[in-house]
Amino acid sequence: MTKRVGVIGGGQLARMMIAPASELGLEIRVLAEQDGMSAKLAATQIGDYTDLATVREFVKDVDVVTFDHEHVPQEVLRALVADGVEVHPGPDALQYAQDKLVMRAKLAEAGAPQPDWAGVATRDELQAFLDDHGGRAVVKTPRGGYDGKGVRVIGSAEEADDWFAAFEGERILVEELVDFRRELAQQVARRKSGEMVVYPVVESVQKDGVCAEVFAPAPGASERAIEVAAQIGTQIAESLGVTGMLAVELFETSDERLLVNELAMRPHNSGHWTQDGAVTSQFEQHLRAVCDLPLGATDTLRDAACMINILGGPEGADIDERFGVAMQAHPTAKIHTYGKASRPGRKVGHINVAGDDLDDAVYTARAAAAFFA
Amino acid sequence: MTKRVGVIGGGQLARMMIAPASELGLEIRVLAEQDGMSAKLAATQIGDYTDLATVREFVKDVDVVTFDHEHVPQEVLRALVADGVEVHPGPDALQYAQDKLVMRAKLAEAGAPQPDWAGVATRDELQAFLDDHGGRAVVKTPRGGYDGKGVRVIGSAEEADDWFAAFEGERILVEELVDFRRELAQQVARRKSGEMVVYPVVESVQKDGVCAEVFAPAPGASERAIEVAAQIGTQIAESLGVTGMLAVELFETSDERLLVNELAMRPHNSGHWTQDGAVTSQFEQHLRAVCDLPLGATDTLRDAACMINILGGPEGADIDERFGVAMQAHPTAKIHTYGKASRPGRKVGHINVAGDDLDDAVYTARAAAAFFA
Repeated sequence: MTKRVGVIGGGQLARMMIAPASELGLEIRVLAEQDGMSAKLAATQIGDYTDLATVREFVKDVDVVTFDHEHVPQEVLRALVADGVEVHPGPDALQYAQDKLVMRAKLAEAGAPQPDWAGVATRDELQAFLDDHGGRAVVKTPRGGYDGKGVRVIGSAEEADDWFAAFEGERILVEELVDFRRELAQQVARRKSGEMVVYPVVESVQKDGVCAEVFAPAPGASERAIEVAAQIGTQIAESLGVTGMLAVELFETSDERLLVNELAMRPHNSGHWTQDGAVTSQFEQHLRAVCDLPLGATDTLRDAACMINILGGPEGADIDERFGVAMQAHPTAKIHTYGKASRPGRKVGHINVAGDDLDDAVYTARAAAAFFA
Repeated sequence: MTKRVGVIGGGQLARMMIAPASELGLEIRVLAEQDGMSAKLAATQIGDYTDLATVREFVKDVDVVTFDHEHVPQEVLRALVADGVEVHPGPDALQYAQDKLVMRAKLAEAGAPQPDWAGVATRDELQAFLDDHGGRAVVKTPRGGYDGKGVRVIGSAEEADDWFAAFEGERILVEELVDFRRELAQQVARRKSGEMVVYPVVESVQKDGVCAEVFAPAPGASERAIEVAAQIGTQIAESLGVTGMLAVELFETSDERLLVNELAMRPHNSGHWTQDGAVTSQFEQHLRAVCDLPLGATDTLRDAACMINILGGPEGADIDERFGVAMQAHPTAKIHTYGKASRPGRKVGHINVAGDDLDDAVYTARAAAAFFA
């Protein structure tokens, strides 16, 4: 029997599951937030994922439910599970990707390496943390942040006053400002049975809080660093009971430590390179994992790969025309488009280049990306 | 503006265009022969492709029309072109893939190397050809043959009597029985502008007239053989005015010649390996070519690749269960399923394995395919 996978959320991550679903012989159905979204080809329903009745209607005809994002409320997820629906990742795991305070507490319990942190409810508590950490720190809203939103570097506790007001009665997360050399990301896939596979750790370059470029595998990473990153990834996947893809964003500190920055329990921007650089892409792997199918090999196809995000240019720019020009100039560049209207800073696609020399791959990817600057 | 591609025919070739269309940002729509076919995810209309009104209805909302097969009648194609519809490949090119006698005459005119052949209308004409060619030959119905159907090896003219009766008044094609060492296949993509790219020539192994295995690149092929195959391919693509993918099936003779056996103007079974073994798959390349987008690189990702077809086992066999077992045993095997019910001998999927050693790739692919035997 063909398995039917229901994806909640109609963005580009759902869209990029369509290709492998088709080849794997899975029937994919998407609950999209609105008409005409990235994953429209597979959208069988338009509706509000925070509304239990809507989600119940959607899951009626699917065998397993997974996600394009982490925003489905816990009460909706738990109601589905109580109904007997297969939800992957399940609410118990997903809560750690939904609330950063809950995540920090769980990672502490699991002994995963992370920056110093605290949950603070008042300006005084925050100031005490600042005083203990050289006067500067990062504050984060526990929920709803993405692409740099909900994250702020502060030098005094007053700079978070608006958040204390907005999240009255709740704690906000404060973390030490880590002295890091670069950011890495570790992709892990885990099945219900506990079977896991890891991808090689990659370097991820952020610009203005948004992932800009990824180099895979992380250039110059020692064998031991690769092992440690993989261990951190599998330990977290296991401790948190993740099913599907897990992305662990890591700081590589100036004193050779790896500290967990953020988690995502779905295909993640730092794993897009796998579409053209690995035997099994993260999108295929996520589908395999959530459908409890055997996991695929994570070997790289070439020695190196580079991914660059295409951020929307001027409002209304004809992005399709630029894709054509970039393709003409760079036949080895694999351009992935999201079918989204161009808006400044909006992720509208990405470019993957795989090759036997990282510098060559980066050069090509940047040259292709320049057509969208 | 997003280009809308209309594919006539709902089989696995249309299905396998869905994945790259989604990534390229093309909107794909399929006119399927019936409900529930391989390409059902993109099927926007069910109907008869030999009926002009049906096809006109379908093409109304697309920017370019292409095909899953060669069976759309010339009169339908020519009516579309007269309506101003972009049809790729166009009827002028497609006629050579639709009628083997027309193809042989055109290749003769173009000077492409091919077996001795003749169009014969009577038993006497056929016997004369046999007498000139050692008493044995291959007869082919000019139209409608596929996967070994419409092809027969004969030792006397009477063995074609039923065809003369069935195709009364028309000629049938007779070809010399070529003494060949193996069969090769050359993939070429050509745009309207004339831009072309070639894939490395591959070896294709047929069983009972059906493609069984493909080795890419053709093992042991000399540099000169690779060049000659590519030249034959590009010369034919140009002479025939092909737009899209062209597959040229070749005999490698015992005396080191390459002779054209058959042509297909679409993605072809001998090119499925490109999905996991080349920078640009033949399905993506076909879409690029018919949409007049720049062509992608045809470089191989690894040194070698092997493709094995999965032919349906016993009626009603649970093919999905077997896919799971094969995936479990062979994580580097890429299994592509067509969403078709299993019937003996029916192509229901294929397995690609790429690697740096052909023997290893073949071993893995055969071991994975054995689960379907």
